[in-house]
Amino acid sequence: MTAAEPAPAIEWGPAGATAPPLDLDALEAEARERLPPMAYDFFAGGAHDEITLRENRRAFHRLALRPRVLRGVGSRDLSTTLLGGRRPHPICISPMAFHGMAHKDGELATARAAAATGTTLAVSLFSNAAIEEVRAASDAPLWSHVYVFRDRGVTRELVERVEGAGVEALVVTVDAPLYGHRPRDVRNGFRLPAHLDVGTLRAAAGGRLDPAATGAELDEFFLSQVDPALTWRDVDWLRSLTSLPLLLKGILRGDDAAIAVEHGAAGVIVSNHGGRQLDTAVPSVTALPEVVDAVAGRADVLLDSGVRRGTDVLKALALGARAVMVGRPVIWGLAAGGEAGVAQVLLGLRAELDLAMALSGASSTAAVSPDLLALPS
Amino acid sequence: MTAAEPAPAIEWGPAGATAPPLDLDALEAEARERLPPMAYDFFAGGAHDEITLRENRRAFHRLALRPRVLRGVGSRDLSTTLLGGRRPHPICISPMAFHGMAHKDGELATARAAAATGTTLAVSLFSNAAIEEVRAASDAPLWSHVYVFRDRGVTRELVERVEGAGVEALVVTVDAPLYGHRPRDVRNGFRLPAHLDVGTLRAAAGGRLDPAATGAELDEFFLSQVDPALTWRDVDWLRSLTSLPLLLKGILRGDDAAIAVEHGAAGVIVSNHGGRQLDTAVPSVTALPEVVDAVAGRADVLLDSGVRRGTDVLKALALGARAVMVGRPVIWGLAAGGEAGVAQVLLGLRAELDLAMALSGASSTAAVSPDLLALPS
Amino acid sequence: MTAAEPAPAIEWGPAGATAPPLDLDALEAEARERLPPMAYDFFAGGAHDEITLRENRRAFHRLALRPRVLRGVGSRDLSTTLLGGRRPHPICISPMAFHGMAHKDGELATARAAAATGTTLAVSLFSNAAIEEVRAASDAPLWSHVYVFRDRGVTRELVERVEGAGVEALVVTVDAPLYGHRPRDVRNGFRLPAHLDVGTLRAAAGGRLDPAATGAELDEFFLSQVDPALTWRDVDWLRSLTSLPLLLKGILRGDDAAIAVEHGAAGVIVSNHGGRQLDTAVPSVTALPEVVDAVAGRADVLLDSGVRRGTDVLKALALGARAVMVGRPVIWGLAAGGEAGVAQVLLGLRAELDLAMALSGASSTAAVSPDLLALPS
Amino acid sequence: MTAAEPAPAIEWGPAGATAPPLDLDALEAEARERLPPMAYDFFAGGAHDEITLRENRRAFHRLALRPRVLRGVGSRDLSTTLLGGRRPHPICISPMAFHGMAHKDGELATARAAAATGTTLAVSLFSNAAIEEVRAASDAPLWSHVYVFRDRGVTRELVERVEGAGVEALVVTVDAPLYGHRPRDVRNGFRLPAHLDVGTLRAAAGGRLDPAATGAELDEFFLSQVDPALTWRDVDWLRSLTSLPLLLKGILRGDDAAIAVEHGAAGVIVSNHGGRQLDTAVPSVTALPEVVDAVAGRADVLLDSGVRRGTDVLKALALGARAVMVGRPVIWGLAAGGEAGVAQVLLGLRAELDLAMALSGASSTAAVSPDLLALPS
Repeated sequence: MTAAEPAPAIEWGPAGATAPPLDLDALEAEARERLPPMAYDFFAGGAHDEITLRENRRAFHRLALRPRVLRGVGSRDLSTTLLGGRRPHPICISPMAFHGMAHKDGELATARAAAATGTTLAVSLFSNAAIEEVRAASDAPLWSHVYVFRDRGVTRELVERVEGAGVEALVVTVDAPLYGHRPRDVRNGFRLPAHLDVGTLRAAAGGRLDPAATGAELDEFFLSQVDPALTWRDVDWLRSLTSLPLLLKGILRGDDAAIAVEHGAAGVIVSNHGGRQLDTAVPSVTALPEVVDAVAGRADVLLDSGVRRGTDVLKALALGARAVMVGRPVIWGLAAGGEAGVAQVLLGLRAELDLAMALSGASSTAAVSPDLLALPS
Repeated sequence: MTAAEPAPAIEWGPAGATAPPLDLDALEAEARERLPPMAYDFFAGGAHDEITLRENRRAFHRLALRPRVLRGVGSRDLSTTLLGGRRPHPICISPMAFHGMAHKDGELATARAAAATGTTLAVSLFSNAAIEEVRAASDAPLWSHVYVFRDRGVTRELVERVEGAGVEALVVTVDAPLYGHRPRDVRNGFRLPAHLDVGTLRAAAGGRLDPAATGAELDEFFLSQVDPALTWRDVDWLRSLTSLPLLLKGILRGDDAAIAVEHGAAGVIVSNHGGRQLDTAVPSVTALPEVVDAVAGRADVLLDSGVRRGTDVLKALALGARAVMVGRPVIWGLAAGGEAGVAQVLLGLRAELDLAMALSGASSTAAVSPDLLALPS
Repeated sequence: MTAAEPAPAIEWGPAGATAPPLDLDALEAEARERLPPMAYDFFAGGAHDEITLRENRRAFHRLALRPRVLRGVGSRDLSTTLLGGRRPHPICISPMAFHGMAHKDGELATARAAAATGTTLAVSLFSNAAIEEVRAASDAPLWSHVYVFRDRGVTRELVERVEGAGVEALVVTVDAPLYGHRPRDVRNGFRLPAHLDVGTLRAAAGGRLDPAATGAELDEFFLSQVDPALTWRDVDWLRSLTSLPLLLKGILRGDDAAIAVEHGAAGVIVSNHGGRQLDTAVPSVTALPEVVDAVAGRADVLLDSGVRRGTDVLKALALGARAVMVGRPVIWGLAAGGEAGVAQVLLGLRAELDLAMALSGASSTAAVSPDLLALPS
Repeated sequence: MTAAEPAPAIEWGPAGATAPPLDLDALEAEARERLPPMAYDFFAGGAHDEITLRENRRAFHRLALRPRVLRGVGSRDLSTTLLGGRRPHPICISPMAFHGMAHKDGELATARAAAATGTTLAVSLFSNAAIEEVRAASDAPLWSHVYVFRDRGVTRELVERVEGAGVEALVVTVDAPLYGHRPRDVRNGFRLPAHLDVGTLRAAAGGRLDPAATGAELDEFFLSQVDPALTWRDVDWLRSLTSLPLLLKGILRGDDAAIAVEHGAAGVIVSNHGGRQLDTAVPSVTALPEVVDAVAGRADVLLDSGVRRGTDVLKALALGARAVMVGRPVIWGLAAGGEAGVAQVLLGLRAELDLAMALSGASSTAAVSPDLLALPS
């Protein structure tokens, strides 16, 4: 796909039928070619030695599938229930900063592709477009990503704005009391390009942020707002601000998941931040079973970090996740083809899941059971 | 071996005595050189990231042998009982599509080599030659490979034709409710070369297939016939059509194997389709023990996927398989040397098994016991 | 950083705030470029096939972290108690020979950086500078490294000198009854450059060493003094010489650690000598738990060998170590930037530990518990 | 070392003191350069995919050492008891064919180096020099290697000759009922160079072998004599021929080892033939513990296959072996330096063992206990 080519038509046909085969390696290679190294590395990189980044993939590879045969999989029902509502498939988009760095249409393109593919989009707090713009651009189900900032007034403003914009839930990052160290960004002297804004954040910041601030000044404002002192009481406070359901993102332990439920979380997102925060943190999919056990059905469990294949989605479901979140693949699609590229990725993953379910003998997500997996070898 | 060289004489001498040493890597390299990339990749490739393709080999490597000494292995009896009949050795040929793409003589060459080496050949439903031609070309024991198609009339026609051709059993693929995704084929734009027919399938299709259809049209006809809705009841229906014994190919679980026996399967072929269907599916040899346990002697268990060495055959026998099926090695032999090349592979594998049995202290397949294997390390 | 650049200002700011990000690979690469191969290899190399050298790192990588969230980590208390005194952080400098080979300022630069960063420095018996010079150069907490030599008079002289110089403890190497075989040194014909002295050792040796001895003669004197006949009784004898606390360095077994405690050791340093003595010895961090169990709080346990990241320090603490010792990273900093380079390494490691604690939900070293670690996979 | 250089003087000094450091990789590289590829590959290669060849090394690497400290290792007693007699160290030379292919002085050089280093040499049945020549060349303790041939008369003749030559024991190969398949030899068209004889074998063969036979004819004679029908009764027959103690070489199972003892074996050599017979056979050192358990002190257990380092010897002793046998390292020394090269290897290994014992806290082979080893990770 080159810039000059028209985007391919996206058809929402019968499951598995119309999506072109997904080649994420090729898409990533194309993204790498198109993007400045600083941008590519920002999206691709991880913390320190990138051990968790790699282990996220290896942990999926080590989980072998034990497919069933002759189960009548003439149609596959990929739908899942998330936060009490029915979604056509269990693939969501992780909150990722700066889609505008991947493509000129930024989050608007992502949102349109999400709408076209029935995908829930978690809009990052660091979206270049403001949440209202994203909302206006598509009717995709939106979740909004929030941090509890040092300045609780900014946080309150933020929650009010995104609630006003009609998002369905809040995704609260809880694994970033400090900003992880990512060597690629340090080497590249990463900063937000000056032509890009951070719409939602600027609006919420109001007078606390110099209207002329760009690039590194925005980065610094954000870094100054990160609050390492957060505790579970701040989750209570956040709940008091809004009636939106809260999903806590970045939980890797059963005991923390149980506490999350006790503090009213509607969902727990098992995540190591795509390997971008604490290097050598346990792979998300390795931590998933203990979280599912601890939550015991009292909240939705989602799996984030390392998902690149339909079989990965299937494995997460088999281990008890309601849905998965994908990050980098969406960015590669966006960089390579804008809205159409994102849709290609989402449809491709959906088709891969559909195929993986069929080949495993599961005609619905409800039929995906733990015994589809063999123990790691 | 080059095209101009005469095929080496094949002698069916005392076990281990006359077969030239087998160098499958060299044969594959030669096949790769001779074949168009599209054809080579079709045969060599696997699903998605080819993880199962690789793990099929690694799983064999992890099984260490614990040889016995001084057991009087002056002669080795490699014969095995399959479907109640005695076969001179436990190596069969997997059903593989399109031998004509590997060598101009296609399945006829394979069948002649099978006959010369006492090997059972499972003729693919997608053989270029029709089953009657294969039957006429040699007196090898033939099994016929079938799918239950959407159009049950095609299926019925197919069963009648192959039964009429005198095959001994039907091999029913059960791990392909959808066609697996193989990136190499997508990249190459794989389609059947126009000069090649699919004899048996065309005959069975009758008027449902345009007589002028070639290449991609044949592919599409097949794809349209794949029926993901199949269930165990369709196995019953298939049994009602024929008195031939059924072997179900593509089972990787003990519970499925038990169901297969309950539905009257005479044999269960433990297979992940050579890593071509569901990537990250468990290696066949890893799944073998649970299938053997579940079948408990009520049917024959065969092992397919990943066999390249005589020690692999020995390991499958030690884990309780009656026989193994080999696929790609036969194709490399066929591409490199036609009938003589296939015979070289089959005799070579047989000689390797003979040697492995001798060096393990087993003078007959019956003497191959589970304690020849150490647990994986 | 090049030789002509001024050293960066080192500020001892709030934890995690002012240290520049540490890139040890780049520092090592720079050291490699600056140093003669003989010197680089002396510092970098290990015994025989360098298996333990590599496994020291892999053992840390295999220990996955299970971070906690929302624990109120607004400030992190990195301080630890060592030998009854409070230290601002748990990172110490291992005794390493010949800092003068890495930088012209040698141990004096290291000591100044140690003082600036609140780091305890274990001064090697083979320091180029004499212990009195090191003591005079900085007010860093110093430990002195000793061997019990064949000539007990030299040993007694040594202990008296370092005690007089005001060191706080003695670090006794117990894993070197013979000098390990390091192929790089053999290939390079390693010997101490003639312009470098070994101040403390020469002084302790007194008339036993030719005043004109340099280079290889010093090496030979040392080798002739290594006493393989040492037993635990020699520890008793050493204790009788001094009231300084003894830390025994080079223990890798619980039973030995228990004996060390019984012989009055104030501390046990779990170490395989950075992989420089017995190749294929167990990684230190693998041996740590059994030592912690055996010591049962009766002495301080430190971890040496393989520490390169803040997460490594965190893991050692989680397994029960009071502190860690780092070696090669300090040398790379010294070679690349003298005092400032060492300070950069120490502050960088300290900042990494601070970050790792924050991201793991531990607001103090006391809060670092064993359940932060998952079992190796 | 080049051909023109005089051999270094070999001194038999205090343990660990005089041996130059051993660099087997360099010696092997030198051997590779000096030898024709056919000869190098013959010595270096293994069966089939050389998996066992590699795993023999990896199995040693996975065994981590748990050294003891302060055990008074001022002198180390490396001696061991073999077949009731005291040997100065536990390193023996495996029976290997065709030393004359490595160096013009062949087995005579090896035997002289064995004598100079107190090493027992197991002279191969396929030695180029006759056993009487080897015996005359040195006073090294000799064992003689025998096969039980199809022609029992040849075997009887063989036993009589070697007994007459004064060997101390017979090493009976029991893992070669057929000759293993070694792809390198096949590719190279390996055959014994025509200028080399096989002295002992020719003498034993007498009139059964054409006096003019050379090269491939000798190979064929040997191959025709290999008897796959051997059983434990043939061990009884062999015992009836001679009063020499028998060591059975090639046992990898506890049950076989127990049978060997019952049939009067004085020793069991745990070996997979250096990875040259049955590929994917279990590494010798992995099989060692079950053999030691089964033998229960009733015979001597030796470990062959994969030993390249003093730590390997130490590990074998810790697992209960009385001694080890080394093969390829001796050949590399022989090829690189003749008698002096072999002595360099033997002294080097001895010195490495001495160092490994010292660094592990073992002052004698009797003090080497199983708890020096950690479980494989």
